[in-house]
Amino acid sequence: MKKFIFILSLFVFSKVDSQNTDSLTLRKIYDFYLTESKCYKNLEQLCTTIGGRLSGSPQAEKAVYWAKKAMYDAGADTVYLQPCMVTHWVRGAKETCVLKSSQIKSSQDLNIIALGGSVATPSIGLTSKIIEVKSFDELEKLGENNIKGKIVFYNVFFNEKNISTGQSYGETVKYRYSGASKAAKYGALATVVRSMSSAKNDSPHTGAMGYDSTVSKLKIPSFALSFTAADVLSEALKKDESLTLTLKCYCQSLPEVLSYNVIGEVKGTEKPNEYIITGGHLDSWDNGQGAHDDGAGVVQSIDVLGLFKKTGIKPKHSVRAIAFMNEENGLGGAKAYAKETEEKKWKHIAAIETDAGGFTPRGFNIDTLTGLYKLALKWKPLFSPYFIENIDKDGGGADIGPLEKFGVPCIGYRPDGQRYFDIHHTADDTFDKVNKRELELGAAAIGSLIYLIDKYK
Amino acid sequence: MKKFIFILSLFVFSKVDSQNTDSLTLRKIYDFYLTESKCYKNLEQLCTTIGGRLSGSPQAEKAVYWAKKAMYDAGADTVYLQPCMVTHWVRGAKETCVLKSSQIKSSQDLNIIALGGSVATPSIGLTSKIIEVKSFDELEKLGENNIKGKIVFYNVFFNEKNISTGQSYGETVKYRYSGASKAAKYGALATVVRSMSSAKNDSPHTGAMGYDSTVSKLKIPSFALSFTAADVLSEALKKDESLTLTLKCYCQSLPEVLSYNVIGEVKGTEKPNEYIITGGHLDSWDNGQGAHDDGAGVVQSIDVLGLFKKTGIKPKHSVRAIAFMNEENGLGGAKAYAKETEEKKWKHIAAIETDAGGFTPRGFNIDTLTGLYKLALKWKPLFSPYFIENIDKDGGGADIGPLEKFGVPCIGYRPDGQRYFDIHHTADDTFDKVNKRELELGAAAIGSLIYLIDKYK
Repeated sequence: MKKFIFILSLFVFSKVDSQNTDSLTLRKIYDFYLTESKCYKNLEQLCTTIGGRLSGSPQAEKAVYWAKKAMYDAGADTVYLQPCMVTHWVRGAKETCVLKSSQIKSSQDLNIIALGGSVATPSIGLTSKIIEVKSFDELEKLGENNIKGKIVFYNVFFNEKNISTGQSYGETVKYRYSGASKAAKYGALATVVRSMSSAKNDSPHTGAMGYDSTVSKLKIPSFALSFTAADVLSEALKKDESLTLTLKCYCQSLPEVLSYNVIGEVKGTEKPNEYIITGGHLDSWDNGQGAHDDGAGVVQSIDVLGLFKKTGIKPKHSVRAIAFMNEENGLGGAKAYAKETEEKKWKHIAAIETDAGGFTPRGFNIDTLTGLYKLALKWKPLFSPYFIENIDKDGGGADIGPLEKFGVPCIGYRPDGQRYFDIHHTADDTFDKVNKRELELGAAAIGSLIYLIDKYK
Repeated sequence: MKKFIFILSLFVFSKVDSQNTDSLTLRKIYDFYLTESKCYKNLEQLCTTIGGRLSGSPQAEKAVYWAKKAMYDAGADTVYLQPCMVTHWVRGAKETCVLKSSQIKSSQDLNIIALGGSVATPSIGLTSKIIEVKSFDELEKLGENNIKGKIVFYNVFFNEKNISTGQSYGETVKYRYSGASKAAKYGALATVVRSMSSAKNDSPHTGAMGYDSTVSKLKIPSFALSFTAADVLSEALKKDESLTLTLKCYCQSLPEVLSYNVIGEVKGTEKPNEYIITGGHLDSWDNGQGAHDDGAGVVQSIDVLGLFKKTGIKPKHSVRAIAFMNEENGLGGAKAYAKETEEKKWKHIAAIETDAGGFTPRGFNIDTLTGLYKLALKWKPLFSPYFIENIDKDGGGADIGPLEKFGVPCIGYRPDGQRYFDIHHTADDTFDKVNKRELELGAAAIGSLIYLIDKYK
C-alpha cells in the first residue's frame, strides 16, 4: 500500500510539476510575444510598402521575397520557395455602375466592384433592366421568361441574428460564388450581389466567383454592390421596376503564372523530419491592403520562427511557418503544398491555419483526428489565464484542408469575429484596422499551442 | 423506490425544461438586441450631437435631458431625475508644452493635456528643468535637494505583459492621481506623467487627479504627455539634463453645481419595490466624445428598458437603467444614489455597472454576496452559445460600489479590454471607434443576465 501511495504521489507530483512547467513556459511565450514580437512591424511593412497583392500581380511577387527575408530575419534555419501555378485575373480600370430611372431625373452612381474571376462587360458597358431576387429558389421560379435579357440582383442580407458572423457569410457567399452561372442559365446578362456584410456602409466587398459550365456555358459579368448601394437599388426598384443599370468592368483572366509558397523552417531537435506547420495566405484582394485578410495570419505565422529562435525553447519536431499563395482565387499554393506532402511523404503532426483576422483570440477549432482534440481539451486550464476559452471540434481552413486526406489533424485559429466581415475584401482592410495587442495575443496563442503539441505529440 | 424515481424524474425533467425555456428566452433576447436595439443609434446621437460632457458643463446638462427622452422612448414607465451635486472643473483654453534645449536649436511643441482637477499655471506659463522618475520610491530617494524648483516627469510605462489591460492601468494610475501632491511635498513646481496606455501614438490621455493636503498644502499643475511626447522628452533628457519645459494651462475649479442622475424604470409585476439596476455614466471627459467611456454603458443600460417593453418579457422585480453623473471626477451621482438608497431603504436584488467600453462581451465579474455568484455559475451553459465564458468573482464599479455596504451584490460587465486603453480619456474616444455588433452583443449579455437574475432571485 505504501509503495502504491508512493508511486501515486510521484505520478500526481509529476503531473502537477508538468502543468507548472507548462504554465511557466506559456507565460514566457506570452512575454516574448508582448514585448519582442515583430508581427505588428512586419504587418505594417507588408501592408504599407507592398499593399494589396493579388495572385500573379507584381505586388504578390514582391510579397514572396519580402516574406522570405522576414522569415530569415525571424531566425528560420531555412526558407524554401515552393513553386505553384496560380490564377492570374486582373481587374483593369475601376468598375462603374450608373442607375437611371424615369422617376429619378438625374442618373446616380452606385459603388460597385467586380468579383474576382468575372469576365468584362462590353467596353461601352452593359445596360439593362433589373430583376431582384432573394434566393436561388426565387430565381428558378421566375425562370427564363422573367430573367432573360436582364441583370439579376441577388439582394440577400447577412443574418444579423447569428452570433458567428462566419455562419452568416457561409449562408450568403453562394450568391457571390455561384450566382452568375445560375442566372446565365436563364439568360441574364450580368449579376450584382449585395455585399456579404452586416456593416451598413458604402464599401463594396469583392471576393471569388466561379463559372460552372455544367450550369451554363455563358460567362456573364458579376459584381458586388456596397450595402448602401444595394439599399438604394432595392428602394429605387420599388418605385420604378423599369429602371436600368449601366455596368462597366474591364477584367481579364490571363494564363496561370508561376508563383510560390514561402516556407520558413526551424529544425526539430529530435524529430526533424516530422512537422508542425502554421500558415496564413500571402496573397490578398487588390482593393485593400490585405491586413486582416490575411497579412495578420502571415505575420503571426512568421513570428513562430522567432519564438523558437529567440526564447531558447527548442522544438522536438520541425516547425514550419508557411505563407501560402493564391488562397483567395484558386488555392494554387494549397494544392502545391499537398502535392509535395504526398510525393515526399512529409509527416505532419499538426497543421494550423490563421485566416480569420488579427483580432482578440478566442480559441481553436481542432480536428478530432489522431486524438489531438481530446489532448487539447486538457490544456484549457493553461490557456484560461490568457482569456482563451474555446477549444472546439472541427478545424482547418482552405490552405491546409487538402492535408486532411493524409490524416493530418487540422486546426483553425479562432479570433473574435464580430468586426471581420465589416472590412473583409474591401478597400477598408488596411493596417490601421489592426490592433497591436490583439494581433500579438493571437500570435502568442498560436505559439503556445505549437509548444504544447510539440511537447505532447 | 418507484415513487422516488418518479419524483426524481419530475425534478430532472423540470430542470431540463427550465433550462430549455431559459435557452429559448435568451435566444429571443439576443434576437431583439441584434435586430431592434436602439443602442447604436442612441450612441451616435449622444456622441455626435452632444459630444464630450464633463460634469457641470452645458453639454452634461443637455445629456441629462437627452437621456430622459431616450429612456421614455425606450419604453420606461417612469423616468426620474435624481439631483446630485457635482464637481465643476473647467479646462479653459488648450494647454501647451514647449521643450527647449541648448542641444536642440529650435524649440519643440509636445502634445500634452492638463489632468482633471489640476490648477492653472501662471498665465505667462511655468518654465523649469525636469527631473524624470520611474516610481514614487525613486521620487522619495531623490528628495527635496534634487526636486525643488523642478517639474517632475513620471515616466512609468504600462506593463505590456499583463493580459488584462485594466491591471496595467491599475498599476500606473496612481502617478496620475496622486503624483502632484507627492512631488509638491519636495518642492516640485508641476508634474507631467506618461499617458496611461500602451498605444504608441501622440494622443495624450487625461483623467482625474487629486490634491492630498495631508501630503502637501501646495497645489501644483499636473499634466499628461502623449506616449510619443513622453518618449521625446525622455530621449531629450538623456542628451541634455538641463533642458526646460514651458507649461501652460488655464484650468479652474469652480463651486459644485446641481446636476442629475437619470433613472428610467420598468415596473416589476410581482415585486415592484425591489430593484435590479444597470448603469453607466453619462458624464465624460471633454476632449473626446465619451463613446466607449461611457456612452456605450449608458446606451446599453437604456436598452434594457426597451427589452422588457418590446419583447413581452415581464420582469417580476422593477428594473432600472441609470445614467450616472460625475463618475469621472467626483462620483457625485454615485453618492446621491447611495444616499437615497439608504434613506428610502430601496431593496436591490443586484446592481450591474457597464463602464469598460462597448467591445465584444467576455463575461461578468460578480460579487459573492447573497449567493449570486454561485447561482450565475450555473448559467454558464446558457451564455456559452453567445461566446460568453468568463463568470468570475468580484464585481462592481465606481458608480455602484457605494451600494456594497448595503449588501447589494454588485456586478461588473466585462467586455474584451485589449483596445480600451488605446483611446481611454483621449480625443480619439469617438463614436466611429464603436462597432455596432460588439455594442449590441454587450447589451444583450446584460439584458440576458438581468432576465436570469429576475427569474431566479
